[in-house]
Amino acid sequence: MDYINKYIDENKERFLEELFELISIPSISSIAQHKPDMYKAAEYWKKLMLDAGADKAEVFETDGNPVTYGEKIIDPAKPTVLVYGHMDVMPVDPIEKWNTDPFKAEIKDGKIWARGAEDNKGQSFMHAKAFELMVKNNTLPCNVKFMIEGEEEVGSPNLGKFCEENKEMLKADIILVSDTSMIARDIPSITTGLRGLAYWQVEVTGPNRDLHSGLFGGAVANPINVLSKMIAGMIDENNRVTIPGFYDDVLEVSDEERAKLAEAPFDEEEYKKSIGVKELDGETGFSTNERTGIRPSFDLCGIWGGYTGEGAKTVLPSKAYAKISSRLVPNQDHEKMAVVFKEYFESIAPDTVTVEVTPLHGGKAYVCPIDLPAYRAAEKACEDVFGRTPVPVRSGGSIPIISTFEEILGIKTILMGFGLESDAIHSPNENFPLENFYNGIRTIPLFYKYFAEGEK
Amino acid sequence: MDYINKYIDENKERFLEELFELISIPSISSIAQHKPDMYKAAEYWKKLMLDAGADKAEVFETDGNPVTYGEKIIDPAKPTVLVYGHMDVMPVDPIEKWNTDPFKAEIKDGKIWARGAEDNKGQSFMHAKAFELMVKNNTLPCNVKFMIEGEEEVGSPNLGKFCEENKEMLKADIILVSDTSMIARDIPSITTGLRGLAYWQVEVTGPNRDLHSGLFGGAVANPINVLSKMIAGMIDENNRVTIPGFYDDVLEVSDEERAKLAEAPFDEEEYKKSIGVKELDGETGFSTNERTGIRPSFDLCGIWGGYTGEGAKTVLPSKAYAKISSRLVPNQDHEKMAVVFKEYFESIAPDTVTVEVTPLHGGKAYVCPIDLPAYRAAEKACEDVFGRTPVPVRSGGSIPIISTFEEILGIKTILMGFGLESDAIHSPNENFPLENFYNGIRTIPLFYKYFAEGEK
Repeated sequence: MDYINKYIDENKERFLEELFELISIPSISSIAQHKPDMYKAAEYWKKLMLDAGADKAEVFETDGNPVTYGEKIIDPAKPTVLVYGHMDVMPVDPIEKWNTDPFKAEIKDGKIWARGAEDNKGQSFMHAKAFELMVKNNTLPCNVKFMIEGEEEVGSPNLGKFCEENKEMLKADIILVSDTSMIARDIPSITTGLRGLAYWQVEVTGPNRDLHSGLFGGAVANPINVLSKMIAGMIDENNRVTIPGFYDDVLEVSDEERAKLAEAPFDEEEYKKSIGVKELDGETGFSTNERTGIRPSFDLCGIWGGYTGEGAKTVLPSKAYAKISSRLVPNQDHEKMAVVFKEYFESIAPDTVTVEVTPLHGGKAYVCPIDLPAYRAAEKACEDVFGRTPVPVRSGGSIPIISTFEEILGIKTILMGFGLESDAIHSPNENFPLENFYNGIRTIPLFYKYFAEGEK
Repeated sequence: MDYINKYIDENKERFLEELFELISIPSISSIAQHKPDMYKAAEYWKKLMLDAGADKAEVFETDGNPVTYGEKIIDPAKPTVLVYGHMDVMPVDPIEKWNTDPFKAEIKDGKIWARGAEDNKGQSFMHAKAFELMVKNNTLPCNVKFMIEGEEEVGSPNLGKFCEENKEMLKADIILVSDTSMIARDIPSITTGLRGLAYWQVEVTGPNRDLHSGLFGGAVANPINVLSKMIAGMIDENNRVTIPGFYDDVLEVSDEERAKLAEAPFDEEEYKKSIGVKELDGETGFSTNERTGIRPSFDLCGIWGGYTGEGAKTVLPSKAYAKISSRLVPNQDHEKMAVVFKEYFESIAPDTVTVEVTPLHGGKAYVCPIDLPAYRAAEKACEDVFGRTPVPVRSGGSIPIISTFEEILGIKTILMGFGLESDAIHSPNENFPLENFYNGIRTIPLFYKYFAEGEK
């Protein structure tokens, strides 16, 4: 491990400079005007890989944003690691809540502050630098491939097709991803489960125009009132989703497994304090970690309609909108969920309004068995760096493409992430502790070492 | 009436030019940055009155926007008409739904299209021109005073104090206002009742920051879900408001009066068609006209929270907001309603969130007896111009200041409006038919004539 620490020490300033340059590209995939930034980020990744020592690197066009692919094949007989990451980031609104420019990274209190500092520019960048480190020190023990995409935050709509079309190129023994968190600063963890995702936008239309709320109020159904009632009706008094069929395919977790999950350290008071709520709430009969780990959710991600400006404008609005998402668990299918959601939403709409449901994206849940040799390699690598065995956790988050990889490429994924819950990913003031960043660069080469040994 | 028609014919182009200049001032009272426009509009009104023949006219400062006052006293022994109108307008959003520039009036299909074309620049302007017409033709039969304010659309927060401080100056026998509608193009009507208004903004806060909906979704209460449920719970299955005390003071209208109200022509199919809805909805046991005329309403004027931009950003938001308004009927008191609303809203908030309720403004309902001499004068004036007796109607709209006038100045108000329901006031593409505009200018001098005769 000495050569690893030495290389990091000698190059840490440069690592940050390069990362900050990547961060400065506002590659927000959900906003069309940032399309040119996606190409800038893709070219930046190409350069990053070639500089690190890749045999080749290329920017591939897709029907959406580009994918950067790079590889170094040291011996076709040796095992191959495929690194997956994403160069796109979430929007930055509400921008007024940021303490710094989201696209101008700053170091403060031992953390990097910026959009993408962690998710996923910071974490994927660790892989580029760990690769560079192995190449420059002649310690790369196996073949390595990188696939860095630009549409993860919008559900990877084109990466499935890219995998289909490039199966041979992407052939590997394991996929390695750092896009998840550790349980705590000093407790490494490996994510063994991810929730899937279904996301819908709904539009409720009442009158054909905004009406005067005095002249019409009381006699004409108000689409915001109606939408509120429809939303309220979709969750029952036990916080269970009322959509028929919603729970049909949910994989019930055995009491034994639930007991094991309950062993993970969790301080409810600390958790509540960290997010500033007096009480938690969720599906009756499940613990907080179960509610996010093994049970589906039903969240309003956004709602809007009528007058939302300053002051007291009276109006009976024509339309109300909401963005609704559900985190899915094995074996819920997002396409089936889209069907049952649409049918139910339409069925509960009163005759006073018309409704439109648009599925925006979705993905399957994923489970990684903990007896996989690659899982054990990740375990050992973490032990070396953190001095303790990583905890296997079911994450509430979604990386829909992970289950797609398994389906199309037939390859399992190791989710060895170095983020923290406090990183505020997807929120204002996203950050990534420097300690985690460097520990990531330390751990990855050890994963390669143990993985290559195990696969020998 | 011949001299009236002649004067209008000779000056109609100039009338429009002057009105369009007034419309071009974007005097939106609810948006602070338009403050300078309020002064422009006030000065414009001063000029309008002096040009029309007022003895004097002055712009008065208030704690908010200015008030323009003007008068012509032909004989202190004669009766006095006080004209009230407002120079401020509503915001123009959603701006993308306008077919024309809202502040650049255009004539098309026999209508004036612009923000304020009707409410209330167009309608108050008729009074300035009717006044001019009487002065220039030496037919003004009584004294006249004008009070044009700049905060009607935000609930006239400073006009009560202005009336208190200028009681002597504002002394009059009747207040005349055109800020209401006629039943139809060919059916004149005089508004004998107005609903009051209560308006609140609510804020629901869940976690102290936007959270990742994957990592937290299912375990932390979502403020949009919570707000939707709270709103839904405030209206029962009969569309009655569930707030305790809400209906306590509602003046129940006798079966006799309800029968009379039912005589007003009303075509439900036409009504539904004009606003593009399949079904109407409102409080069980009341007709559409009763629901807007004699019963209180409960409308969401706006709602917002979380991600409302393009695409599918997942977030468990920190906050959700709504603007809620209730049209009140006699004898509901908006201050009492603000108290019961706040108490109830706070009482139904679960422990998972904190809520804040801000009353934004309010006003009392108003009723005008139809045996008032001034009411009969308005009736006769309308008969002369429209060839039929105007229908007395209870409007669902609110002009909260009207009941304040009665309280402070002790003067009743005649609500002789010339708008149409199709004028889309407060909405995109507000318009005012030229026919109504000129009929207004024709009717007003006749009101003065009959009123002066009656009061002799």
